[in-house]
Amino acid sequence: MSEGRIYNFSAGPSMMPLPVLEKAAAEMTNYGGSGMSVMEMSHRSKYYDDIINGAQDVLRRVYNIPDNYRILFMQGGATMQFSAVPLNLMVTGKADYAITGNFARNAYKEAKKFGDIHIAATSEADNFTWVPTPDQLDIRPDADYFYICANNTIFGTEWHYDPNAGDVPVVADMSSNILSKPVDISKYGMIYAGAQKNMGPAGMAVVIIREDLMGHYRENMPVLLDYQLMADKNSMYNTPPTYSIYMMKLVTEWVEQMGGLEAMAKNADLRSSMLYDYLDSTDFYKGAAQKASRSRMNVTFRTGNDELDKKFIQESIDAGMTNLKGHRLVGGMRASIYNAMPIEGVEYLIDFMKKFENNNK
Amino acid sequence: MSEGRIYNFSAGPSMMPLPVLEKAAAEMTNYGGSGMSVMEMSHRSKYYDDIINGAQDVLRRVYNIPDNYRILFMQGGATMQFSAVPLNLMVTGKADYAITGNFARNAYKEAKKFGDIHIAATSEADNFTWVPTPDQLDIRPDADYFYICANNTIFGTEWHYDPNAGDVPVVADMSSNILSKPVDISKYGMIYAGAQKNMGPAGMAVVIIREDLMGHYRENMPVLLDYQLMADKNSMYNTPPTYSIYMMKLVTEWVEQMGGLEAMAKNADLRSSMLYDYLDSTDFYKGAAQKASRSRMNVTFRTGNDELDKKFIQESIDAGMTNLKGHRLVGGMRASIYNAMPIEGVEYLIDFMKKFENNNK
Repeated sequence: MSEGRIYNFSAGPSMMPLPVLEKAAAEMTNYGGSGMSVMEMSHRSKYYDDIINGAQDVLRRVYNIPDNYRILFMQGGATMQFSAVPLNLMVTGKADYAITGNFARNAYKEAKKFGDIHIAATSEADNFTWVPTPDQLDIRPDADYFYICANNTIFGTEWHYDPNAGDVPVVADMSSNILSKPVDISKYGMIYAGAQKNMGPAGMAVVIIREDLMGHYRENMPVLLDYQLMADKNSMYNTPPTYSIYMMKLVTEWVEQMGGLEAMAKNADLRSSMLYDYLDSTDFYKGAAQKASRSRMNVTFRTGNDELDKKFIQESIDAGMTNLKGHRLVGGMRASIYNAMPIEGVEYLIDFMKKFENNNK
Repeated sequence: MSEGRIYNFSAGPSMMPLPVLEKAAAEMTNYGGSGMSVMEMSHRSKYYDDIINGAQDVLRRVYNIPDNYRILFMQGGATMQFSAVPLNLMVTGKADYAITGNFARNAYKEAKKFGDIHIAATSEADNFTWVPTPDQLDIRPDADYFYICANNTIFGTEWHYDPNAGDVPVVADMSSNILSKPVDISKYGMIYAGAQKNMGPAGMAVVIIREDLMGHYRENMPVLLDYQLMADKNSMYNTPPTYSIYMMKLVTEWVEQMGGLEAMAKNADLRSSMLYDYLDSTDFYKGAAQKASRSRMNVTFRTGNDELDKKFIQESIDAGMTNLKGHRLVGGMRASIYNAMPIEGVEYLIDFMKKFENNNK
């Protein structure tokens, strides 16, 4: 790593590409000859128009987003979308949720405030170690939408297929695997992602939504969660999170420059298979997630001994890595390996794991 | 101005102190030896604890905020607070609003979704050229709160006194005059400010609220607008806008280093009186706001000739200034002169105004 930077395995906010941070630093006091920082710009200015429209354009290019989908920049992260999704999409009052982790469960709890919510599948009884297969999904044909969390950050599981819900639009929270692989957007009614794991700074969510699903926002609800309004105003009904959008543009441009989503998927597969292959080669560590549901973004594992796990985490910090402690709902360790994690970071971690195993088995 | 920077009179987002931007740039790839950017840090880390708590501490120091007030970092800017205020504070269902500009009116319209709203005063018939005097306020004694917008960015007016509403808590939107003068916080139930004018990047609002006013959030509303929940979680119920909070900390530290709110008030008085004194010395320009209500932050004026106004704006851009065009609701020109605008910027503007007058009268 360059200049004192460390391997940061944080689940979110997370590592960002160094060239993106360096570009942001270089442009901080004077963006593109404008004489001002992006933070200082009027969101109604020509300079900023280029940024907000450019952010949409590059996202549209890398995902090949169809014309009948709109891109919205919403304030408040994924948790705000837990409210916004039912308030915008629950037209008849019924929605179905797959509960595959903590954030899916939180989204379900929030949606229950606003209508009749059916659990289409849940792995809660197994502490969310798996993601349902297509035949395990019980989706009501008259549901307004079917909701999934595409990658479960805490538990280290991921959906490896696009759910087919017939005519029911699928809504996917892709906060922790956005920009990590090509996605056929047309298979979803809406996808969204809190930016802070793989797209940019915290405090914003990107929504990609099929146009015909908008326009049904519930009456007498907070104005700022209305997708149709945000679409009509190009995400500028009020002052948008201008700097976060700029950073998200830089990150997405970096993805494009590095070869796009195919390249991101290849690297994600490589990073995660290196770790899983090693985990499967030893009895010292145990993967927390069931093999078929393993996430390419968050690798959860433990030694099976809480004291040893603690020692692992402490020694990993001493070795120049950070945020390898697992979430309290799972325990053990978690390595979050998003787009910006270099392959060398994973090699370094595996090397450390081998040494730790040798010293402690 | 240094290194190609320009005088930016934008109403928001607005100029930020150059030393703050330079510090942010210097720390972008490696904050305080952490080996990572503030953007990359887990919000649950020790490093970030110091930032979010430090941001509260410095704000508490500069405003001398009493112990029975809490500081919250809310996502979504002032517009999200238009919804959050009634949803949290309207316990019996009645609230009174002073309508002194566009944002006060928007806040009023939003509040009407949620209860019985009474207009305590309005200057709408005069296109918001004035702010009511204390005797013009008609506040119901049983209102849950009395709401004002302390500075009206578009119209260039400002409240020059703290309203006394008896036992009714006063709620003030200080988005455009936060950090510009000392305020006796105990005279308010709550103040809040979207960050992007005088505190930091867009996308966040700071709320300062008396503890006893929390705990009454309306049932079955979006979880993230609940003040009590945000207070209980130290603004980290979900991932907060970590970088925006960091920038707001740097800006507030700069305010403290420059002499605190007394120094900011002195400079704001100086900047605005320089402009108003000049406006009053000539018949060529006319101030848009009534004299007793003039804002120290946003100076609105016009020549009285639309073509001449257009020429003024174009020539001001050619002269290296930006965003002097007035809002369409007022027309003419507007100079927004927040804390970060150097006195030399105002001198430069006045010099330009004099030349323009000489060339066009």
